[in-house]
Amino acid sequence: MEYIESIRNEQIKNAVKLQTKKYQIKENAYFLEGPHLINEAVAAGVPLQQLLITENHEDDHVVKQYYDNSWVIADNVAKHLAATETNQGMFAIAPIPTMTLPEQISGGWLLLDAVQDPGNVGTMIRTADAAGYAGVIIGTGTAWPFNPKVVRAMQGSQFHLRLVQMPLADAIAQFQAAQAPVYGTLVNQDAVDYRTVKPTGTFGLVIGNEGNGMNPELAKETTANLVIPLPGKAESLNAAIAAGVLMFQMV
Amino acid sequence: MEYIESIRNEQIKNAVKLQTKKYQIKENAYFLEGPHLINEAVAAGVPLQQLLITENHEDDHVVKQYYDNSWVIADNVAKHLAATETNQGMFAIAPIPTMTLPEQISGGWLLLDAVQDPGNVGTMIRTADAAGYAGVIIGTGTAWPFNPKVVRAMQGSQFHLRLVQMPLADAIAQFQAAQAPVYGTLVNQDAVDYRTVKPTGTFGLVIGNEGNGMNPELAKETTANLVIPLPGKAESLNAAIAAGVLMFQMV
Repeated sequence: MEYIESIRNEQIKNAVKLQTKKYQIKENAYFLEGPHLINEAVAAGVPLQQLLITENHEDDHVVKQYYDNSWVIADNVAKHLAATETNQGMFAIAPIPTMTLPEQISGGWLLLDAVQDPGNVGTMIRTADAAGYAGVIIGTGTAWPFNPKVVRAMQGSQFHLRLVQMPLADAIAQFQAAQAPVYGTLVNQDAVDYRTVKPTGTFGLVIGNEGNGMNPELAKETTANLVIPLPGKAESLNAAIAAGVLMFQMV
Repeated sequence: MEYIESIRNEQIKNAVKLQTKKYQIKENAYFLEGPHLINEAVAAGVPLQQLLITENHEDDHVVKQYYDNSWVIADNVAKHLAATETNQGMFAIAPIPTMTLPEQISGGWLLLDAVQDPGNVGTMIRTADAAGYAGVIIGTGTAWPFNPKVVRAMQGSQFHLRLVQMPLADAIAQFQAAQAPVYGTLVNQDAVDYRTVKPTGTFGLVIGNEGNGMNPELAKETTANLVIPLPGKAESLNAAIAAGVLMFQMV
């Protein structure tokens, strides 16, 4: 295995650049950090393009599997690549998956309408995965899912469900064509108590922007708008909490 | 109203120090930033000790109400006090409330067992408030609730419900003495599906540490341990999401 000892090595420069959206789109690849995420990727059959490891990982099972695409890096290089103070000496370059809606939609889908906070987007994707949803549709204005903060919060869920990027108006039209209900979350006088809805089969659930909620134009196209009644004094829930409560109602 | 133009003014130095736990406990007070939180405090009848405002706020309703405890600060002083890049020119010093359990416990209570992340603690308190819980008990090892990051995530919920700080073993004993159930969240073979439990009246719900879960010694004392079945592939939920799903089941 080749040894990389300088942060000026081209591969290392490339790995750093693969933490930015612009370069990720250009190269159709992104950066993964840590054995947990990398093992999840391998378990899901993701063809890693490069594995960059410190010496202590040379005998790891995953390294043997990707031997031809593995490089040993010096500790200072690992430190340079890591987002966190304490790095675990394992990094990878993974391909960005196909981000289109399957022709036949089935199962539960989470639709994100301009959800801006990367931590919220990552947590919502992780929750959708835990709740058994088929995929998450990233609408216009929503944080890019391969932003390192989203990747950290997703905890590997991108390997378990389908991520799709498209305007939500188009996505909703496709659910309508498939005669599948789409539930919105615009709080208006027609909104119904979320506990009265328990869809089975194929459906969509739209979560809106943290501050402004869901786009009213989109909400006109939904089957119903759901509201979580709040018996207490707080005016609203954190967007990721609201999404979690709704998603688990719809399991 | 007196005008403060220097960040070396003693009152300003004091306000900065009131963002640290040590000084908060010494002075029994903490720091609030922004009109939203300050208006929430005033609406809840909290006796603000000081109000520090930029000139544009001089005619605000809340400022008139606290006129004798208000100071006008220069823009550079506001910038110095603010945690965020864009500050809204309004800060206050508020008393730390009494943090003991009421003699007669009633309603729903959230018990936090070594929840370490300040954002998680703040979000959980906000969710408990929205769900109509009576209070939150901050157990040993849980983030201090007047840490600025917790205060930001609580969004004023500290003015709506009771915050209590005590060892959870003592709190659970008090619930037992009041014959009120306490639900834990230790995942073990005896754990029951959270959807089968719908307590009314007085109860406690314990949420554990983000990485290690709930202390098994405490879990021995609970009425039952609840589990959220995860039909998907993610191994676990974010702690604040799990807490939100459980709390709304128990509304």
